[in-house]
Amino acid sequence: MEPSNLNKEQDQNSWALNAWTLLSKLRDQSPLIQCITNFVSMDLMANTLLSAGASPAMIHSIEEIQDFTPHIHALCINVGTLSPAWLPAMREASLVANKAGKPWILDPVAAGASRFRLKACLELVGLKPSVIRGNGSEIIALSKASLGATKGVDSSHESMDAMEAAKSLAQSSGAIVAVSGAVDIITDGHRVVGVHNGVSMMQKITATGCAVTALIAAFVAVDPLHALEATASALSIFGIAGEMGMDMAKGPASLRMHLIDSLYNLDQAAVSSRLKVSSL
Amino acid sequence: MEPSNLNKEQDQNSWALNAWTLLSKLRDQSPLIQCITNFVSMDLMANTLLSAGASPAMIHSIEEIQDFTPHIHALCINVGTLSPAWLPAMREASLVANKAGKPWILDPVAAGASRFRLKACLELVGLKPSVIRGNGSEIIALSKASLGATKGVDSSHESMDAMEAAKSLAQSSGAIVAVSGAVDIITDGHRVVGVHNGVSMMQKITATGCAVTALIAAFVAVDPLHALEATASALSIFGIAGEMGMDMAKGPASLRMHLIDSLYNLDQAAVSSRLKVSSL
Amino acid sequence: MEPSNLNKEQDQNSWALNAWTLLSKLRDQSPLIQCITNFVSMDLMANTLLSAGASPAMIHSIEEIQDFTPHIHALCINVGTLSPAWLPAMREASLVANKAGKPWILDPVAAGASRFRLKACLELVGLKPSVIRGNGSEIIALSKASLGATKGVDSSHESMDAMEAAKSLAQSSGAIVAVSGAVDIITDGHRVVGVHNGVSMMQKITATGCAVTALIAAFVAVDPLHALEATASALSIFGIAGEMGMDMAKGPASLRMHLIDSLYNLDQAAVSSRLKVSSL
Repeated sequence: MEPSNLNKEQDQNSWALNAWTLLSKLRDQSPLIQCITNFVSMDLMANTLLSAGASPAMIHSIEEIQDFTPHIHALCINVGTLSPAWLPAMREASLVANKAGKPWILDPVAAGASRFRLKACLELVGLKPSVIRGNGSEIIALSKASLGATKGVDSSHESMDAMEAAKSLAQSSGAIVAVSGAVDIITDGHRVVGVHNGVSMMQKITATGCAVTALIAAFVAVDPLHALEATASALSIFGIAGEMGMDMAKGPASLRMHLIDSLYNLDQAAVSSRLKVSSL
Repeated sequence: MEPSNLNKEQDQNSWALNAWTLLSKLRDQSPLIQCITNFVSMDLMANTLLSAGASPAMIHSIEEIQDFTPHIHALCINVGTLSPAWLPAMREASLVANKAGKPWILDPVAAGASRFRLKACLELVGLKPSVIRGNGSEIIALSKASLGATKGVDSSHESMDAMEAAKSLAQSSGAIVAVSGAVDIITDGHRVVGVHNGVSMMQKITATGCAVTALIAAFVAVDPLHALEATASALSIFGIAGEMGMDMAKGPASLRMHLIDSLYNLDQAAVSSRLKVSSL
Repeated sequence: MEPSNLNKEQDQNSWALNAWTLLSKLRDQSPLIQCITNFVSMDLMANTLLSAGASPAMIHSIEEIQDFTPHIHALCINVGTLSPAWLPAMREASLVANKAGKPWILDPVAAGASRFRLKACLELVGLKPSVIRGNGSEIIALSKASLGATKGVDSSHESMDAMEAAKSLAQSSGAIVAVSGAVDIITDGHRVVGVHNGVSMMQKITATGCAVTALIAAFVAVDPLHALEATASALSIFGIAGEMGMDMAKGPASLRMHLIDSLYNLDQAAVSSRLKVSSL
């Protein structure tokens, strides 16, 4: 084996060990994750968090934020079915989380679909999320602050094309930015890491993107000081669960079931042999 | 084979070919379908559209309609968990869709359950939907403009009994009217077509009616000039997926999974051998 | 066999016969159950009711209560994703149900999570529910009228510890109180019954607690004069479906599917051989 390959293998092993360590911590600590999220995703998001070992709480009323949010371990805000009535609670929760030193993660679903949505997303970006995860179109819309040729919640940009936008957004916002795609990209504005796990059929299941954002929140909750690594770990773990689910699936609905079961049952051997993370 | 049977068989073959052609177009074009729908149905509706090849967008805020709705290929409005706050966006979206020449489809869930709901449904009927799909009780309530002995969202009328109501509603509204039941009925007020696909256990899965209405939207999106044929095709395709799912199902929850998987995997041979559409 | 064991066995047989009789009635009568519930639970709740034989209606607008609620057979109110806008309809629906002599069931999800939520739950407790079902933390929060160390919607109290709180809440409210846990506890404030069915993995599926509360509503709907027995029956039937599902499950998502299928297919032999209810 050549030295460069050897280094790569050592790198993989170190990423795999870290991802497994974080998943184990998550299962031990069962962090409480508050989700202010869209209606479509609530079921899959809660079940993803539960199967990973976290404790989800879908609490979105502004009346509850001051009492409840200080006790959480991370907050996930997702604008999928945004309406003006939900925005104040999103703002307030992010502020309370920041004040309490708890990480919060933003999923800017369909950020470029309307001026209302783009403005709301840009405001939330300004409220210091630890991580922003979207698809290529969404990250480009945020980075350029412009309405995009968004196709609903699907991405019409390949994630590699969005790399520059991600770096720029990370630099301007101070957040880790993750772009989902055939290769997931994670950047702090300087370093760029790629996650090569997952299967394309996951895009045929609604809310898998939302679910992995919540999983990122759970991973960052157990390692808030290394948000880039935690984000890459969550994306690879979810992707591995998808790959293992795919081995048993006959279509998108059985994939959804097997993915969640696989996430619940995931062991270190599977993480070690399947995880594919690389520096880009 | 007698001549009349031969004609029937040619008729079936022609319906099957048309349904398959539309499904293929749908998979190729991946039309963007905006759904303003009830909370219960969102997950199954999005997954039905994705597995059929369409691109769902659950966007319901009135603030987004002017920017977003002109870019869609069809709109699905479903009043299942109606509240006054959602009505203005339904109205606005239907107007924008009409103006942009995009078809929109109405699902008048439990239309006769209250005066508030009936009034809202009748107003929406007046806003020129391309297709209205409901169960017998709902179509009768709309046709008679009266509260019915509705049983929640289940139908307490056999669909054949609702045929006259459907024809009358189609004539007064200008919409294609579809009535789900043991035999689905589709009419433009003059012609009446019956779809004999599907299995009764589909009624034991929540939101299958809502999901097939969204699928109708996707089929009409790819063939807006033949809304009656597109509607019958969507109903038969969904019914065939249900039949194939039923071959593997052990109950309503596994049927739901296998139905979606079957819809994703549906091929021309299955459509040709299973589709049952007839003139009534 | 000793006399005390013989009595226990007779007692089991009598509980099993009663649970089976109620399930059969439910399947025959298909009671209409109105659910004003949280967004996360709607899908599983509706599917649980359908697979048990009931007819769900997720109707939550205050505009519809006067027309619709008098026709229902039971009402389920669940505060999971509570917001101030939903409270007036909850109040109104409980009043209309009471006036019409229809039982209503309260699920005080995360009752101790905030002052807003606790106050709302305590107000609803005062509106004479027939049954209150929660986990230990929730029942303790209601009983003590104090914010608790709630962990989202999970319980941080073992149900046995909550027995005294349950009895006290039952006495003060006049409701049957059920506490879910490793052993479910049901009490009218004097008598205490334990249900030993179910499997721990059910806690890894979101909204199973919400779903069983809706099932309690359906069971009480067919035997309103014996709410304690109906509640214990619903909890044991759901638990048995979970046990049978677990025989086939590979994780939480397949358990969810098999649970619903098992509930749909449940026969008297399974109920007789598996039901475990005891006086505590």
